[in-house]
Amino acid sequence: MRISVNERGAERLLGRHLWVFRRDVVSGPEEPGLFPVYFGRRFLALALYNPQSDLTVRAYRFQEGEPEEALLENLRRALKRREKALEEEPEGGFRLAHAEGDFLPGLVVDSYAGHLVLQATAYAWEGLLPRVVEVLKPYAKSLLAKNDAPTRTLEGLPLYVRPLLGEVPPRVEVKEGGIRYLVDLLEGQKTGAFLDQRDNRILMERFRGERALDVFSYMGGFALHLALGFKEVLAVDSSKAALERAEENARLNGLSLKTLEANAFDLLRALEKAGERFDLIVLDPPAFAKGKKDLERAYRAYKEVNLRAMRLLGEGGILATASCSHHLTEPLFYEMLKEAAQDARRAFRILEKRGQGWDHPVLLNHPETHYLKFALLQMA
Amino acid sequence: MRISVNERGAERLLGRHLWVFRRDVVSGPEEPGLFPVYFGRRFLALALYNPQSDLTVRAYRFQEGEPEEALLENLRRALKRREKALEEEPEGGFRLAHAEGDFLPGLVVDSYAGHLVLQATAYAWEGLLPRVVEVLKPYAKSLLAKNDAPTRTLEGLPLYVRPLLGEVPPRVEVKEGGIRYLVDLLEGQKTGAFLDQRDNRILMERFRGERALDVFSYMGGFALHLALGFKEVLAVDSSKAALERAEENARLNGLSLKTLEANAFDLLRALEKAGERFDLIVLDPPAFAKGKKDLERAYRAYKEVNLRAMRLLGEGGILATASCSHHLTEPLFYEMLKEAAQDARRAFRILEKRGQGWDHPVLLNHPETHYLKFALLQMA
Repeated sequence: MRISVNERGAERLLGRHLWVFRRDVVSGPEEPGLFPVYFGRRFLALALYNPQSDLTVRAYRFQEGEPEEALLENLRRALKRREKALEEEPEGGFRLAHAEGDFLPGLVVDSYAGHLVLQATAYAWEGLLPRVVEVLKPYAKSLLAKNDAPTRTLEGLPLYVRPLLGEVPPRVEVKEGGIRYLVDLLEGQKTGAFLDQRDNRILMERFRGERALDVFSYMGGFALHLALGFKEVLAVDSSKAALERAEENARLNGLSLKTLEANAFDLLRALEKAGERFDLIVLDPPAFAKGKKDLERAYRAYKEVNLRAMRLLGEGGILATASCSHHLTEPLFYEMLKEAAQDARRAFRILEKRGQGWDHPVLLNHPETHYLKFALLQMA
Repeated sequence: MRISVNERGAERLLGRHLWVFRRDVVSGPEEPGLFPVYFGRRFLALALYNPQSDLTVRAYRFQEGEPEEALLENLRRALKRREKALEEEPEGGFRLAHAEGDFLPGLVVDSYAGHLVLQATAYAWEGLLPRVVEVLKPYAKSLLAKNDAPTRTLEGLPLYVRPLLGEVPPRVEVKEGGIRYLVDLLEGQKTGAFLDQRDNRILMERFRGERALDVFSYMGGFALHLALGFKEVLAVDSSKAALERAEENARLNGLSLKTLEANAFDLLRALEKAGERFDLIVLDPPAFAKGKKDLERAYRAYKEVNLRAMRLLGEGGILATASCSHHLTEPLFYEMLKEAAQDARRAFRILEKRGQGWDHPVLLNHPETHYLKFALLQMA
């Protein structure tokens, strides 16, 4: 039982890209599973395979080996790379397995103070879950399968949320730098929090000042760290429920936040009209560009929020600005920021160009693993 | 006395780019100096001006003010931003003034353990030198004007090297992370060392292993830091004199380096043929692309050294690779690395995307201030 790919598919795998789409698959088994991939008689890779999915082949190893053992070995390696961090910060939140970035296509595992949440979006994982649970066990106080991502239906997989190990608490308290926050394991977005911004949020503790503004604040992730160093922090979001959680998190830390339920675009315009000034502004918007065809509109939206935020900064003010949209590439992100600064008639120093945290690894050969851009700018 | 620019020149300055070329200057004084720039009756900026130079207008401030005082104020601010670092590491090497990046067009000042080296490549600085010396005095054990850069002739300036303050020692010992190195103030390249890579060199102290290779080693900048953590470090350069200095620096630190005088391309091929393996390789080549027309050839050269280095790495090996060529932009640099990895048939994790140090500031609105790319890759 093997998969055969055409020359284009072979060239992708030889160049260490992990994906081959259906159009480049010559033949393969009828059922999903783990199989070796060949170009003619030449072995190329071991891969997760799903003939139902347009993304048919997802490679995870470029040497021969026993398919199941090799895949579980990749999981063990991913865990090993996180061991030091888990030991040093047992109450922290870390991503233990980052799908393609860890050569574990379609598998994400996050740890919230030792309570694990797993998401599998490739078919072949489903039958492997008992063995995955075995490997994760030493790292887990509890383990929840949060398999309710709509993309699973494209793979022909059912949607469910189910505990796989131990007693899953509805909420967990996580320590991050100088603050603590609550995570809803059962109900939050994605696996519960946005761990990719962890180091960027902690970075906010470096700054001191009078007034800070956190637009798109969600549950106050950035705002809480800012509240350690700023006299007044305004957290804005369009969701009242998220802001209530932000306030709860603030109380948990003995900090105070001002919260405001508002549309970000309207609010930034209103603040500018009122002549308000801030020493630091965080922009961490949701992905404006969901697909390639949205890109032009999304580019304009990113530029508008950034331009308006730039105008609200006082002298020497800091703009911490992000985009998690894969389609807005890193070069486009910085081009957008440059245009925003030009139109805002403000000069900025680039203090740091950052991205997703180290536990969300990026593969040079597989650019799809890179999605989070984060710039730290200072008005010059 | 004022400079008038056309609409295109005005748009550049309003967008906070610092340069206006001759073609966009409508009128101006006959002599070089510091002057305000206008579009019609609208004030735009204060600028260094040289009608002899194609780069005629170099702005340094976008508010009105007394031109000379405003320029010196920019120098004072640049120094102020470095004060903490200078206090914490009095024996360190830092750039105190980074030309356009500090709104000091054409002026570079480096400090080597308090011994200052200045380079001015814009005409208007020449008459201001006495006042510049006054501002630098509190930070200087000595001050050398190293005004021998060939670009000065384009500005109509003489070439000279002359002490401006105190007794300038021919060589200074500089502390950098866990090592010390000697700098030739009077004879070295640029102002003596390559301070832009300082933090990237110190980063090498994070790694441990058996064998490391530093290609384009020059005076052993990266190799010395590697020698703290690797059993064997091979430093390669085409200059025998540079390698002798590398060995001298190694003795100064009680470390041992293997040095080899060789052409980098030939050597990498030979090492591959011999089946050699390294745990970490540093590639810090000189700028292969000096001008835009060299870019295609330079791109191939960068790709070749990177591809060959990638093939010399053992499993989990680290590639620390840089380009200081302005024309090879950051997106092109990462595209080049991706292609090299594809052709080398190796997968790499991007551990860090870095650039020039914090004391070589980059302006978002003036992309020419960004030139150094530095990637830390790990074979996956």
